[in-house]
Parts: sequence; structure tokens; C-alpha cells
Amino acid sequence: MSYVTYSAETLERACRDMFEKFGFSATEAAQITDVLLLADLYGVKSHGTQRLVRYHKSIGKGCVKVDAKPQIVFETPVSAVIDANAAMGQLTSIYAMNLAIEKARKVGMAFVTVRNSNHYGIAGYYTKMACDQGMMAMCVTNSESIMVHTNSKQAILGSNPIAFAMPAKPYPFWFDAATTVVPKGKLEVYHKADKPLGENWGTDENGEACRDAKRVLACIDSKKGVGGILPVGGIREESGSHKGYGFSMICELLCAITSGGATSNHHVRKPGQSAGTCHAFIVIDPKIFGDTQEIEAHLSAFLQELRDAKRADENVPIYTHGEKEALAMQYHKEHGIEVDISTVAEMINICNDLGLDSREYFGDVDISNAKETTYEIKGMEQ
Amino acid sequence: MSYVTYSAETLERACRDMFEKFGFSATEAAQITDVLLLADLYGVKSHGTQRLVRYHKSIGKGCVKVDAKPQIVFETPVSAVIDANAAMGQLTSIYAMNLAIEKARKVGMAFVTVRNSNHYGIAGYYTKMACDQGMMAMCVTNSESIMVHTNSKQAILGSNPIAFAMPAKPYPFWFDAATTVVPKGKLEVYHKADKPLGENWGTDENGEACRDAKRVLACIDSKKGVGGILPVGGIREESGSHKGYGFSMICELLCAITSGGATSNHHVRKPGQSAGTCHAFIVIDPKIFGDTQEIEAHLSAFLQELRDAKRADENVPIYTHGEKEALAMQYHKEHGIEVDISTVAEMINICNDLGLDSREYFGDVDISNAKETTYEIKGMEQ
Repeated sequence: MSYVTYSAETLERACRDMFEKFGFSATEAAQITDVLLLADLYGVKSHGTQRLVRYHKSIGKGCVKVDAKPQIVFETPVSAVIDANAAMGQLTSIYAMNLAIEKARKVGMAFVTVRNSNHYGIAGYYTKMACDQGMMAMCVTNSESIMVHTNSKQAILGSNPIAFAMPAKPYPFWFDAATTVVPKGKLEVYHKADKPLGENWGTDENGEACRDAKRVLACIDSKKGVGGILPVGGIREESGSHKGYGFSMICELLCAITSGGATSNHHVRKPGQSAGTCHAFIVIDPKIFGDTQEIEAHLSAFLQELRDAKRADENVPIYTHGEKEALAMQYHKEHGIEVDISTVAEMINICNDLGLDSREYFGDVDISNAKETTYEIKGMEQ
Repeated sequence: MSYVTYSAETLERACRDMFEKFGFSATEAAQITDVLLLADLYGVKSHGTQRLVRYHKSIGKGCVKVDAKPQIVFETPVSAVIDANAAMGQLTSIYAMNLAIEKARKVGMAFVTVRNSNHYGIAGYYTKMACDQGMMAMCVTNSESIMVHTNSKQAILGSNPIAFAMPAKPYPFWFDAATTVVPKGKLEVYHKADKPLGENWGTDENGEACRDAKRVLACIDSKKGVGGILPVGGIREESGSHKGYGFSMICELLCAITSGGATSNHHVRKPGQSAGTCHAFIVIDPKIFGDTQEIEAHLSAFLQELRDAKRADENVPIYTHGEKEALAMQYHKEHGIEVDISTVAEMINICNDLGLDSREYFGDVDISNAKETTYEIKGMEQ
């Protein structure tokens, strides 16, 4: 695959202009862009500009409603239940996380839960918001049904990522991971490269472990509900399958059950309707445990001990969570962000569709090698 | 291995009498017994009466201080930091969880964190306490260093179990799992049976995956700090090693960092000192999200959908977390609890040591097949 390198500023300007053309205010466009750009800066390509084509379609089909505003439907000093009303996931989530931070600052801890939302990008964006303000935070979401739980051949649970962050020096602890062994995007990469999947990554339509990427992806995309990706821990309890299944369940409980929203198996894919995605934002102010500087120093020292541990292979560094991302951000700010040619082509198409001059952002670039966008909102009735 | 079956009542009476003889009050002895017995009733043998021998030694060496009382050292309406003062882990934890429940009932959610404690038995006992009162709860602990984190050959993190519970019918959601692939006890079972370990369960002293139970156990027991058990997700990031490592980190942050206590790598094993174990108890009253009956009904329906999913193998049922334990409890209450002959021998020895007549509980039982207790507090200086 070929790549073009753009500065973060260029991508930011392009994204902002696109989202403004979609109908969002300048502030809203900047907020959505910030979430996407953090993913690209952190090197989490699957959740960066690569996703623009999906948002373009979701907005076009009315699944994401540009004018909708999230609404508090139940509230206490430590909590809120928000109905996103099919608004953009990122806007709803920034609103929800800000509310959780504000409540936690007053009361010490807070829990804001959201229903009827849409894809919100990288979960760790929101925990970073809180962490940047000195808070501990946890954030979860559900998603399309993709995980086959232990002994099941039916995919009911989502990939259900868990994000957790806490301030530390020189890097915060910043964890963000799906509770499946791997995300769907990884299967797509292996499929393109004709590589066999890892053992215990996915199952076929009979519920048997399957290393054929094409077959597992066909299971997911057919929406027949059988076959999918395994929980972290694999297919058997012996290797901890029930643990990944349990962590994924905790996500559903924290976001869908608390909000009265749709569990992953009840998400919808119809024009004019939000996916039904649910999120949860939990914020804890470390001051409820005493001296916050001591707490941060304690964590920083512990993270250093982990990095300094004896290595299994001298040539492979030991990372703490969030360290790779902090290093990637530094690198990408300095050297720009590589965007694959297919994503560039998608962005050029979106510009054309919106009446923006793509050359202003992307220059004259040869996109003849770009693969056609194959993303479709599966099962969507016209 | 041979077993003797005793009624729950008999084991309860024996445990209570032993703990009273250790010097605990009748109420305290009943509390500790209740934690141990729930493990046996749930079929989690590693955390039931099988552990009495360890508590006997810990008390004898002064690591657990019978007269110590946990003490609140910092408090807000939503939180408390408790110094256990080397008290029995179960007593400290029941006190801490009751405090968290009381605070959550008033404020909506609460976070109680504990340092300088000892082993507290089954983590899920405490989430069950809250769940039985209609609350959602999460509970974590750290433990001896046993987990080799991604790319490390040094064990720094503990097995660090995460427990989570929420009310539902006919069974609550009740999750309790170590963040290692398997607990140490499983390695011991495989060692006794001369079976090769699962792939990606443990590493040798060089940090390489190792299926030889004896060698991995030797790494752990030598306390040289190299080799150990892998995080759920195995040895490589490809299979999600960094995810299990991350979940284990979240435990350390929630209990050791918030309490200003010892992370697993700083636990001590010296006579007269507590292990330094830390715990955290987080309770959320579902009423902060609205109608608690609706929330419970929603969760109950979702759990049923998971159980009713299409099975990978028609003959293997699909469980939700806590279901097996509820069924095991019903069975054990009716049919009694099988105790292996070595544990019976250990209990008889403890009775003899404490001046109790073991026949009153265990009858005249042939213990000539019992294996001698090999458990020692490793690295303990006399």
C-alpha cells in the first residue's frame, strides 16, 4: 500500500472544513476533528481519518443526525443518564465526559451513561480529557455484535473496548483496548495480506476456531449472527475465554444496562436511526484519596519499575500503557502523518461531494492506486 | 486423590471454632468463616477450607495480627482510605465493603481503598455483599508478584483478580477472575498430574513460554523474580498479552496507588509484618440511573439472551458469569462439600494444635493417604 504524508495541521484543517460542510458548527467540527486526529497522532489508524468515509455515509443516511442535541433524561449529583438522540457520538461523548468531570470535581466521583448514540471514535480520547485535568477515568462503549462468547457460535456482544487513564510522569497510564482478542480491522489487514489468522482469533459459522480471515469476515459481514471474533483469552475457558467474555459483559452492564439503552445485539442499522450505541464515562478525582501529588509520584515510580524490569529479549523494550502513543504523537507532530492512498482518495471524494476543493488540503495526488471504498452500512434498507 | 464429604454446617462449625481459638471474637470468626465457606460452596476450592493452613501459619508468624483493627486514615462522603494495620484480610474487607455500601446508599456511589492488609479470600464475596443489597459493585486486590508482563521476564504484577457483580434474576451477574491466564493453583494441579501446561500459560526464567509446570512453579517459588504466569492474552501482543497486563495494572492503580499502599512487587514476607496487600471496593447504587426494577429486568433479559445463544456444541451449555457458582452452591448445600484428604489432615492438625477435638467435626477418618503440607511462607526469615 502506498502512503502520502500530511502534517497534522493540514489534516485538521481538512477535517474541520468537511464537518462544517456536513452542517456542524465551527466548534462542533473542531471537537469531532480533535477526536479523529488524536487517533492518527497516536498511531491508531483504524479510528482516525480512515473513518471519515463511514461518518460521511452515516450522516448521509440520517443515522447520525447533525442537528440533534444530547439530552439529560435522569440526573443526580453523581450521575446522569443521557439520551444522545442520534447525535454524533463524539459530540455527545465530549458533552458527557465534561459533565462527568464537572460532577466529579464537586462530589469526588461521577458516572455518566449514554444511550441512542453512534460510534464515538477512540475511547481513550475521553479518558484523556479527564486525565489532562488530573482525574482518573474509565470509559467504555458497546458496538456492533461481533464477539462470540464462550461456547456460543452466535455473536451477541460487541468488541466493547475499555479505556482507563490516570495521570503520571512522564507519560500518564493510558489503556484502551477491545475485549476481543483483536479488532475487526486486524482481520481485514490479514485478509488483504493473505495471512492466516492467529490461533483463537475467530470462529467460523459452526463455532469452530478458524484461521481463514475471509471466512470469519464473511460471517461478520453477512449479519447472519453466527461466527465472529473471540474474546481475549480465546475459545476455551482453559486459556481464559470466559475472562474476555466477562470483561465485555462489564462494558455492556456499565453502558447499555445503566442507560436503559440497546445492548450490542439490539443495535440497529437502518437509515434515519442511530445505531443505538451506548457509552459510559466514570471519573474519579484522586483528591478523594488524599494528596494528589503523592499519588501521582507513586504511580510514576511504579510505571518506571515496570519499564525497567528484566527483559525477556534485551532488544525488545517494555512499555507501559500509553507510552507508545505518547511517543507516536511526538513523532507524528514532527514528521507528519502517513495516510494510505485509499483514505486519501476517500477524503478527496468527500471533498468533491461537499463542494470543497480537495487540492487545498491534499495537493495533486495520484490516486489511481487507491482501492475503491467497499464500506457499506450492512443490512441497511434503502 | 481421595475425598471426604462434609455438610456445610459441619465445616462452618469447625472453621468458626478454629478462628475463635486463634483469638478472634465469635462475630469475627463467623465473618471469616463465611468468606471461606462461600468459596467451597461455589466450588472455588483454592479459596475455601483448603486455605486454612495458610491462615494458621500467617497468624502464627504474626503476619496477620489477631487484635488489629482497620482504621480510616482519610475520608470523604464518597470515599475512604483504610489502613488495615495487618488485620485479617476478610475482616478488613467486610468492614471496608460495608462502609462503601453505606456511603453509596447515601451519595449514590463510593470508593473505599485499603492498604497493609492480608489475603482476603475470594474477591467475589465482597461484590456479593453489595449485590445482595441491590447494588452494583467492583472489587479488586493485588497479591504476590506472579505475572510476567508483556516483554518482561520479571514478575512484578500480581494475579490481581477483578470481581464485578450486579443484581439479576434468576442469577446475578457475578464475575470473579484473575487477570493472569490461570491461577497458580492450576499449575500445581497440572504439576501433580504430570500434564504439560497450556500454551502461553507461563514462562521460564529466560522469559520464554514454558509448558513445564515444575519449572514455572520453581521460578515463582524461588522468589528470584524471573519467570511466572502470563497475563490473560498470553505472551505476545498479537494474542492480547498487553490487554491482560493492562487489566492487571488497573487493579494495582485502583487499590495500591489510590491507598498509598504497596504494589505487588513491594509486598513483604516477614514474620510480624502484614503482606502489605491492597484492596479496593467500588459500589454503585443503580437508583442513580433511574428505576432499579427496570434496570434489573433489562439485565435479566439480556443474560437470558446470552444463555439462549446458538451453541458451538449442542452438548455444551452457555453460561453467564455466576450461574455455575449458583448451581454449585445449591448442589453443595444439598449434597455436602467434598474435601480432599490432605485438607482434612491439615484441619485435624490445626485442631490438635489449638486443643480442639477434631473428631467432633471430622469423625474418625483415615488420613494415611494425605500428602504432607508443603506450604511455607517463602522467603520468610525466622
